[in-house]
Amino acid sequence: MSPAAELRPSDRAPGLLLGEGVELPDDVELGGHVIVHAGTRVGAGARLQDGCVVGKPVVLHASSAAGGGDPPGPAEIGAGATVGAGAVVVAGARIGERSVVADQAHVRERTEIGDESIVGRGASVENDVRVGSRVRMQTGSYVTAWSVVEDDVFIAPCAMFTNDPTAGRRTAGIELRGPVLRHGCRIGAGAVLLPGVEIGPDAFVGAGAVVTRDVPPGALVVGVPARVVSE
Amino acid sequence: MSPAAELRPSDRAPGLLLGEGVELPDDVELGGHVIVHAGTRVGAGARLQDGCVVGKPVVLHASSAAGGGDPPGPAEIGAGATVGAGAVVVAGARIGERSVVADQAHVRERTEIGDESIVGRGASVENDVRVGSRVRMQTGSYVTAWSVVEDDVFIAPCAMFTNDPTAGRRTAGIELRGPVLRHGCRIGAGAVLLPGVEIGPDAFVGAGAVVTRDVPPGALVVGVPARVVSE
Amino acid sequence: MSPAAELRPSDRAPGLLLGEGVELPDDVELGGHVIVHAGTRVGAGARLQDGCVVGKPVVLHASSAAGGGDPPGPAEIGAGATVGAGAVVVAGARIGERSVVADQAHVRERTEIGDESIVGRGASVENDVRVGSRVRMQTGSYVTAWSVVEDDVFIAPCAMFTNDPTAGRRTAGIELRGPVLRHGCRIGAGAVLLPGVEIGPDAFVGAGAVVTRDVPPGALVVGVPARVVSE
Repeated sequence: MSPAAELRPSDRAPGLLLGEGVELPDDVELGGHVIVHAGTRVGAGARLQDGCVVGKPVVLHASSAAGGGDPPGPAEIGAGATVGAGAVVVAGARIGERSVVADQAHVRERTEIGDESIVGRGASVENDVRVGSRVRMQTGSYVTAWSVVEDDVFIAPCAMFTNDPTAGRRTAGIELRGPVLRHGCRIGAGAVLLPGVEIGPDAFVGAGAVVTRDVPPGALVVGVPARVVSE
Repeated sequence: MSPAAELRPSDRAPGLLLGEGVELPDDVELGGHVIVHAGTRVGAGARLQDGCVVGKPVVLHASSAAGGGDPPGPAEIGAGATVGAGAVVVAGARIGERSVVADQAHVRERTEIGDESIVGRGASVENDVRVGSRVRMQTGSYVTAWSVVEDDVFIAPCAMFTNDPTAGRRTAGIELRGPVLRHGCRIGAGAVLLPGVEIGPDAFVGAGAVVTRDVPPGALVVGVPARVVSE
Repeated sequence: MSPAAELRPSDRAPGLLLGEGVELPDDVELGGHVIVHAGTRVGAGARLQDGCVVGKPVVLHASSAAGGGDPPGPAEIGAGATVGAGAVVVAGARIGERSVVADQAHVRERTEIGDESIVGRGASVENDVRVGSRVRMQTGSYVTAWSVVEDDVFIAPCAMFTNDPTAGRRTAGIELRGPVLRHGCRIGAGAVLLPGVEIGPDAFVGAGAVVTRDVPPGALVVGVPARVVSE
């Protein structure tokens, strides 16, 4: 069935298109031209802003690395959460209560985001990521697939994570490994985290640093490659 | 009132949704599925391209740092200006005459952009920024809140600015300070500017540099951290 | 004629707007609120997802550097190709068979992309770029105008290319020169390539590197500025 075949115009808001079986409580605030795909569950008091797309079915390119997980269920948008203008939340993503997926941001399948967290404007959280509560992923930041981001982490604008040590030439037995960000750590603007690095609790990665190895708890690292300057 | 409650379909263009009291002269070029929120003022000969959102009401997350300013008025789009496909201009932003907010770009509340300036494709200009005239902020560049960008500045693709020296742990009395870019300076691709740095007139920050202190007028700086290589 | 003047609602999918003379085979999968401009040619079995814009007419800013080429013809989307949600493909772009322009990505005029290639989520490929087949340009990567990207190249997330050695102050006789990426080379996340550099076949640019000169075939370079660490 074509994606359009399952969408039907709804009188609830101008330009609203709904798939089958969408849960959409009466008090959800709806912008214009919103699209909500089949089966999506939206919590009370949520906001779906202009032109956002929620529950987009997963269609993977043949060569994509994201095909390994379980087939995603519906998207879930928590009570009081916001999906911004032009944002896309893919089927199987779960957005916690009062969290914000800001304008033009993107959250992929099987990714879970806790409560009161922010995915900044234009930021991207790939598939199979675990994000805690009160996490701030600022404008334009990039959280790669299979990352782990614990509670109260701060990711500054345009920080970038990687998960593939082979840069696209994996063979059997080489897994993608996203970074692991422990509780309360902070990642500076434009910093680059290499595959699988662990950033200790309350550590601070300076702006523009390139992190090639684990960062101890509470440490400050800066530079290319990043070196510890205080602990 | 729900944002959708204030939007009404208009016959002026296919998929056009208008809020109350929008000023939209007859000669404005309209793409498809454009949304213009209540009170927005659009100048003569402007272009609003496919799926753009203009005058989006401000809804701040409780923990956002952007709540300190005055409540924004309507968005203003200058005569002959262009808002590109999928771009979002928030309420209270002012775009100067003949300026371009390119496809998928984003401009926030209380930000003023002068005449004949460009916000590149996918670029982001946060709240409370002052941008002069003939400024080019290229594709994917990120201009943080409370930045000052004077006339004739060039910001190359994917350059990034920061304004929070604490990376998310400000306490009372610590202010956000965006960079200050003086007349005619140039910022290279992927460069990172730390909070509050001042880039002197006609200075040049090399691609990929991380600028941690002020740059003298006319100087060239490169590297991580950036050092002066010529004056 | 206004862009909206040429768009007409179509019954084929909810919110679909079509320009004159669009070729759109019966088996094309259509999302909601899709816009396809006049003359666009879409191949059999292609997917146009929610809110994408295909064949957007070119309107250049007076100061844009992209005005030098031939007037673009229509956009062409190859058989089995996908244009993601919120993506924009400009008139004159050609997307090869089974290639993917992912959600919120952008491809400009006179750019050709081969078969089975990927333009990642939010990535940008500027005008007049030649991209081969089986190329992966990952999330948020930026491919500047007049770049050349040969077959089987891998560009990691948020890598950035430049083409203007003067950063916006070109005079007569100075040309924009995009990087040249030879067959099978790999560019790490957040790497910056300076104007006109050539990356040799099967070379590997490390994450966060700033490449200021040509990279030999098969070499590995890292750092700022990038230096050869193995050949």
